[in-house]
Amino acid sequence: MSRRADASAVPDLVERARAGQARAVARLVSLVEDESPLLRPVMAALAPHTGRAHVVGLTGAPGVGKSTSTNALIGALRAAGKRVGVLAVDPSSPFSGGALLGDRIRMQDHASDEGVFIRSMASRGHLGGLSFTTPQAVRVLDAAGFDVVLVETVGVGQSEVEVAGLADTTMVLLAPGMGDGIQAAKAGILEVGDVYVVNKADRDGAERLRRDLRNGLSLAERAEGSWKPPIVLTVAQSGQGVDEVVEALSSHREWLGGTGQLAVRRARRARAEVEAVAVAALRRRWEIGDRSSLDALAEAVAAGETDPYAAADRLLGD
Amino acid sequence: MSRRADASAVPDLVERARAGQARAVARLVSLVEDESPLLRPVMAALAPHTGRAHVVGLTGAPGVGKSTSTNALIGALRAAGKRVGVLAVDPSSPFSGGALLGDRIRMQDHASDEGVFIRSMASRGHLGGLSFTTPQAVRVLDAAGFDVVLVETVGVGQSEVEVAGLADTTMVLLAPGMGDGIQAAKAGILEVGDVYVVNKADRDGAERLRRDLRNGLSLAERAEGSWKPPIVLTVAQSGQGVDEVVEALSSHREWLGGTGQLAVRRARRARAEVEAVAVAALRRRWEIGDRSSLDALAEAVAAGETDPYAAADRLLGD
Repeated sequence: MSRRADASAVPDLVERARAGQARAVARLVSLVEDESPLLRPVMAALAPHTGRAHVVGLTGAPGVGKSTSTNALIGALRAAGKRVGVLAVDPSSPFSGGALLGDRIRMQDHASDEGVFIRSMASRGHLGGLSFTTPQAVRVLDAAGFDVVLVETVGVGQSEVEVAGLADTTMVLLAPGMGDGIQAAKAGILEVGDVYVVNKADRDGAERLRRDLRNGLSLAERAEGSWKPPIVLTVAQSGQGVDEVVEALSSHREWLGGTGQLAVRRARRARAEVEAVAVAALRRRWEIGDRSSLDALAEAVAAGETDPYAAADRLLGD
Repeated sequence: MSRRADASAVPDLVERARAGQARAVARLVSLVEDESPLLRPVMAALAPHTGRAHVVGLTGAPGVGKSTSTNALIGALRAAGKRVGVLAVDPSSPFSGGALLGDRIRMQDHASDEGVFIRSMASRGHLGGLSFTTPQAVRVLDAAGFDVVLVETVGVGQSEVEVAGLADTTMVLLAPGMGDGIQAAKAGILEVGDVYVVNKADRDGAERLRRDLRNGLSLAERAEGSWKPPIVLTVAQSGQGVDEVVEALSSHREWLGGTGQLAVRRARRARAEVEAVAVAALRRRWEIGDRSSLDALAEAVAAGETDPYAAADRLLGD
């Protein structure tokens, strides 16, 4: 079957993905990356089977050991009998169109394991980038029956926020000796994490980093009765502390379920997703259907004949 | 006058900004940051006065000396009699709401110069973040008569792309000894730059970096007859090479004008701007006017009763 599947192939593809066939899952994720028109029937077929996976966002600055930690986490989750899907999202390569990172190779420890699906995703950047495609890829892995879906992103700037937006549980990875104090304050990581992991805990400064983090978290405003994020020390390379991380993730998942926060987070996530799809649909219409009109408006704005607000009104037919 | 100006104050505010009064310019930029409803009359009043400034995007990884270079550039442009507006955009603080960077203080060399306006911008992140607010702030400085508008961003991930999208001329800053080879390939900087600056040229490896960059640029696909980006070596700290940078920027501006590329770029920019304003208007409608409906759709999606595509159709009234 060619990569360009037609609509009649969708039911079979969805069924095989749900049966756990890696190639079918990969095909569906490719449809997401390609922003294929087939996503419409695919997503309709997947919808009843979503909502079961625990979606975990994993973020951290370059160098803290994200790939090694992901690898160790996969191992621990597999040992506990969980099926694990991984989406490695790389917002730093908008142009390359492909996300080939050297250290991803380490994750191939699990390449022959049928209970593990790993995919690097890159944004083609057309309709809204990763904020458009990532939630839909999560949806595919969720419906394909993975118990845990890990979304790994490079923690630079706004990507943490996006991850926090799409995960049930956000795990923030740090490591000693990287100017983390400043990083923490700057990137707002004290607000987004549900579980904090200090990796490379065998190095100098790990204990101090934990203390600083603990102090920072105690100052951060959190609502009464809210979740108190644990801080776990790990050496991902050797596996030390990784079981504790798995336990912390699972405690948070239980807390979410028990307090009703899971429903709140998922509704918020669905809201963002519906909005993103609607905006993408409009963009496509403006691009294709009404191209000349948007182009004419843009030229009028560039020429100073009108302003972006008046032009937008006309675009929206107000 | 309070920060919350009313609509009747707009004509006076615009007039004072156009007369070069820094406080009026600052007020208008604040309206942009606040996504104020007053932007509508403000932008309508500014439109006829836009299109004159040379908009220069300046991007580079942390540590290459962006602030020092900006500072040096301001000095050189001032010496040439140009009025300079600077927008320092910090995509790494989506939460803080304020962009207070220590090394920005260096730019205060020019704090008492009326021909210089410097503003750090942070995205409140509500309607589309910096991609929504930055072009409008550029529009304000342009209409206020600044000859050059420098937009400085931290070069991480997608921000280069955004800068390249909004500038007439994109200047990419590098420095030796930062693993630039990998950085260059990864972040796609070979595609976005119109002018490349190797700063800290007095350090080891500057010459090699220039050679690598030159090789990389010669391999990058560029259309026949297109601009060949120059590479300038500087020591921003001492001012060495900075006049050459000013010259390179001005050559590129001339090339843009002569080839018609300026109109192409500006129409593309206006197009993105109109789209962003239209999307923001829709988001606001979905948020306020039709809130219950989007919330209900989101809950249905979260419950697996429908999918994001079908929900988006209903949101758009299709």
